[in-house]
Amino acid sequence: MKNIKIKSVLISVFNKEGLDELCRFFFQNQIDIFSTGGTERYIKSLNIPVKSVESVTGYPSILGGRVKTLHPKIFGSLLSRNNSEEDQDDIKKYELPKIDMVVVDLYPFSETVKFSNEDNEIIEKIDIGGVSLIRAGAKNFSDIIVVSQKEQYSLVLDYLKENNFSSQLDFRQKLAFEAFNLISQYDKDIDEYFGLKCGVYTNLRYGENPHQNALFKGNLDQIFKKLNGKDLSYNNLLDVDSAIKLISEFHDPTFAIIKHNNACGIASAKDSLSSYLLAFQADPLSAFGGVLISNTKIDYKTSIEIDKLFFEILIAPEFDQKALEVLKSKKNRILLLQKKINIQNSSYRNILNGVIQQNYDNIENISKNWKLVTNTNASGTQIEDLEFANKIVKHSKSNAIVLVKNKQMISSGIGQTSRIDALKFAIEKAKQFKFDVKGASMASDAFFPFPDCVEIASSVGISTIVQPGGSVKDELSIKACNDQKISMFFTGLRHFYH
Amino acid sequence: MKNIKIKSVLISVFNKEGLDELCRFFFQNQIDIFSTGGTERYIKSLNIPVKSVESVTGYPSILGGRVKTLHPKIFGSLLSRNNSEEDQDDIKKYELPKIDMVVVDLYPFSETVKFSNEDNEIIEKIDIGGVSLIRAGAKNFSDIIVVSQKEQYSLVLDYLKENNFSSQLDFRQKLAFEAFNLISQYDKDIDEYFGLKCGVYTNLRYGENPHQNALFKGNLDQIFKKLNGKDLSYNNLLDVDSAIKLISEFHDPTFAIIKHNNACGIASAKDSLSSYLLAFQADPLSAFGGVLISNTKIDYKTSIEIDKLFFEILIAPEFDQKALEVLKSKKNRILLLQKKINIQNSSYRNILNGVIQQNYDNIENISKNWKLVTNTNASGTQIEDLEFANKIVKHSKSNAIVLVKNKQMISSGIGQTSRIDALKFAIEKAKQFKFDVKGASMASDAFFPFPDCVEIASSVGISTIVQPGGSVKDELSIKACNDQKISMFFTGLRHFYH
Repeated sequence: MKNIKIKSVLISVFNKEGLDELCRFFFQNQIDIFSTGGTERYIKSLNIPVKSVESVTGYPSILGGRVKTLHPKIFGSLLSRNNSEEDQDDIKKYELPKIDMVVVDLYPFSETVKFSNEDNEIIEKIDIGGVSLIRAGAKNFSDIIVVSQKEQYSLVLDYLKENNFSSQLDFRQKLAFEAFNLISQYDKDIDEYFGLKCGVYTNLRYGENPHQNALFKGNLDQIFKKLNGKDLSYNNLLDVDSAIKLISEFHDPTFAIIKHNNACGIASAKDSLSSYLLAFQADPLSAFGGVLISNTKIDYKTSIEIDKLFFEILIAPEFDQKALEVLKSKKNRILLLQKKINIQNSSYRNILNGVIQQNYDNIENISKNWKLVTNTNASGTQIEDLEFANKIVKHSKSNAIVLVKNKQMISSGIGQTSRIDALKFAIEKAKQFKFDVKGASMASDAFFPFPDCVEIASSVGISTIVQPGGSVKDELSIKACNDQKISMFFTGLRHFYH
Repeated sequence: MKNIKIKSVLISVFNKEGLDELCRFFFQNQIDIFSTGGTERYIKSLNIPVKSVESVTGYPSILGGRVKTLHPKIFGSLLSRNNSEEDQDDIKKYELPKIDMVVVDLYPFSETVKFSNEDNEIIEKIDIGGVSLIRAGAKNFSDIIVVSQKEQYSLVLDYLKENNFSSQLDFRQKLAFEAFNLISQYDKDIDEYFGLKCGVYTNLRYGENPHQNALFKGNLDQIFKKLNGKDLSYNNLLDVDSAIKLISEFHDPTFAIIKHNNACGIASAKDSLSSYLLAFQADPLSAFGGVLISNTKIDYKTSIEIDKLFFEILIAPEFDQKALEVLKSKKNRILLLQKKINIQNSSYRNILNGVIQQNYDNIENISKNWKLVTNTNASGTQIEDLEFANKIVKHSKSNAIVLVKNKQMISSGIGQTSRIDALKFAIEKAKQFKFDVKGASMASDAFFPFPDCVEIASSVGISTIVQPGGSVKDELSIKACNDQKISMFFTGLRHFYH
């Protein structure tokens, strides 16, 4: 641990709150203060000695204060390494001042955006010098204490008092972390401002619910060409995201219907019309108001069928001209021509007091890597259905069970707090819409800790199962399958999705 | 629109790719090039004339190149406003060069983090000068073209060719947007590096699934004191987030059990033990492996009961000492003492090619603001149950229906693609765990577009309903309630949650 005893500090703050106590502390402890502009005047008004940055750099503040501290003598000092002989030589050669600590409070950009509609006023609040000082000090945390926000004053004062005006590396590193945390948020706010100004980002009419404000910070034009309809809502965007991630798994002509981010119908078939009809059949009730997606051209015949349904959005890579005419008959209907899209390779969201992020779940999970764990094997068609079911279960909210016959999802149990409920509700739904579960193929997002799911599955005639495997009690499920001549495969890959 | 014809450009790039074509273009079109360090040498090697930054500033590159462009003459030029007389006076007075365009390619920080374990090497790749140049140019987009990444070269060249070396304000604003977008991401990567170094951020063992890498960028120590157990997993953190958001709605002694981000049991009662037992009763199967949360002290008697259950996490504001001893008997069990937490006031996640964000759904939704829309009124107890149910439905994945009796959730239907399924499955689950639905109070996250939910509810004896209202066919549901002497309230507030 390298301890640094501070002897001088550079202060440049917008908000003067707390500066009084801070400067008195520095003064009483023989710590030199460098400053400039309004901060310098304020410190002088406290009758505390302060050296002007201009007297150090020999260069005046110019452009009405837009450029004050951006001088090589200041940045040379902040970025020079105590353990570098060359740097120490340069310090002497160029007469760089010694600065051990930098205290900055940035121009209030986001606050200004909130109360002002004047672009000039807002732009003027983009801090350039302050951000540069903070970033330079933070980069050189091995030698510099960087105080990037007034909320840190009392903690830093207490620390310095307790440590006889010295600081340890881990303390300075933590301050560097907090500095970059602040700056990245500061520039995110500026990014948001410019993104909206440029029309790349979109203020949504509202969020998940009408009483929530919302914003989409992405460029939809890169993904879709909108051919018809109103603006996409927050909930539309979530569904569209689910839809394109799901459909990207399939290569045969495939049609899916999304509600509340889950597929309520999906099928692969020989053409667009057949796949739509099979997808719709799985749950005509939920399809009402849904988001539809096809990976093949929407032809005229298909459009006639789709037109009968009340839906919010239809996404496809191509539309027949006559099909478009049919579908455009309702002006609110959103028709999106899908361009190529690169799905982001990580996903993140904010929870608790931070952000949780992970790699996107895009591992290859195909039947040739699966392990048959039962005495009974599955037919080629069954294996195709298991693969089909497994792709859907991966994109269904956990706990999820998906039942498939001939590349048609006949039902699913989704978003449940137990696998058993997911399975029972899947069976229930299949029956409700007149599907025969007998002979169906079943996929589970998670392994079976008990043989209960196999027992329920076998009681209704489900004939083949794919699941991750890996429970300590796998053998019980395998035995239950063998007893009932059900085939079962382990993928080794869980697909929780929340 | 203010058109600016460019006459000079400042170039400072790490990666020299594409620089050749760019510089030839500038040279052929009589655009002066300023540069420094490696970029300057590279341009010279192309036999293209270039003016050194040092010749402009009269100040050398110092600290082995750590400080090259950070000089008031450069930043004065970048930040000076063409439409400001004072600025133009300063340009003459201080002999600032005229720079119309800045081209930067930053030090590759995140790429270096990926391949290097050397902190010095990584830290050295934190770009200070380049970021300052980009931010200054972007702030002054009204006069400056800022090229912040080499991916923009060809687009900018084409634009300048087409526009006779002029540019319009909207083009420069778009580049400023892309600049801040890049910088905020750049500093987010640095924040992540420092956050992990400081031990504030945590690399998780894996993500939602074992084949996904994951990271939590938050400070759990600010929210919890961990009293026992292993590290929290990704899925634990999601459940903990759901748990504390849900419990924050309740003031009476309340206990909740969370699985897959939804409550599978929750009850308010006179004390911790009663509320736990009632919460557990709603779905003992799902409770297995769940995340438990209480808003009251866990006393000894409660701990004895809880100890019988296999669970992952128990969160409470206080633990009796003897209760702790009981609960610590299993070393993997996570026991969290909850401190005060400020729930973030906005929520965001990445979807498609961007980020979607909204205000957190924290509007006050209490019965005194509700509207009774039926002839039949509800009793005081029923209204309390409706309020209780409505708080739960707000935190349950959509579509959701919650059934409550005496401040005990007797079941819920969650995460469904239709309201009807949500209601039917809620009724199903209540029966499975031997609850009498007759006389229950019901909350729905969304309004009823048809009277079907009221009809199903009345068929099983549900006696009172709360829902947002606002459907064009509200009257049908109201009539169905009146026919069956069910009371119904409209909140005016939808609570979709995905």
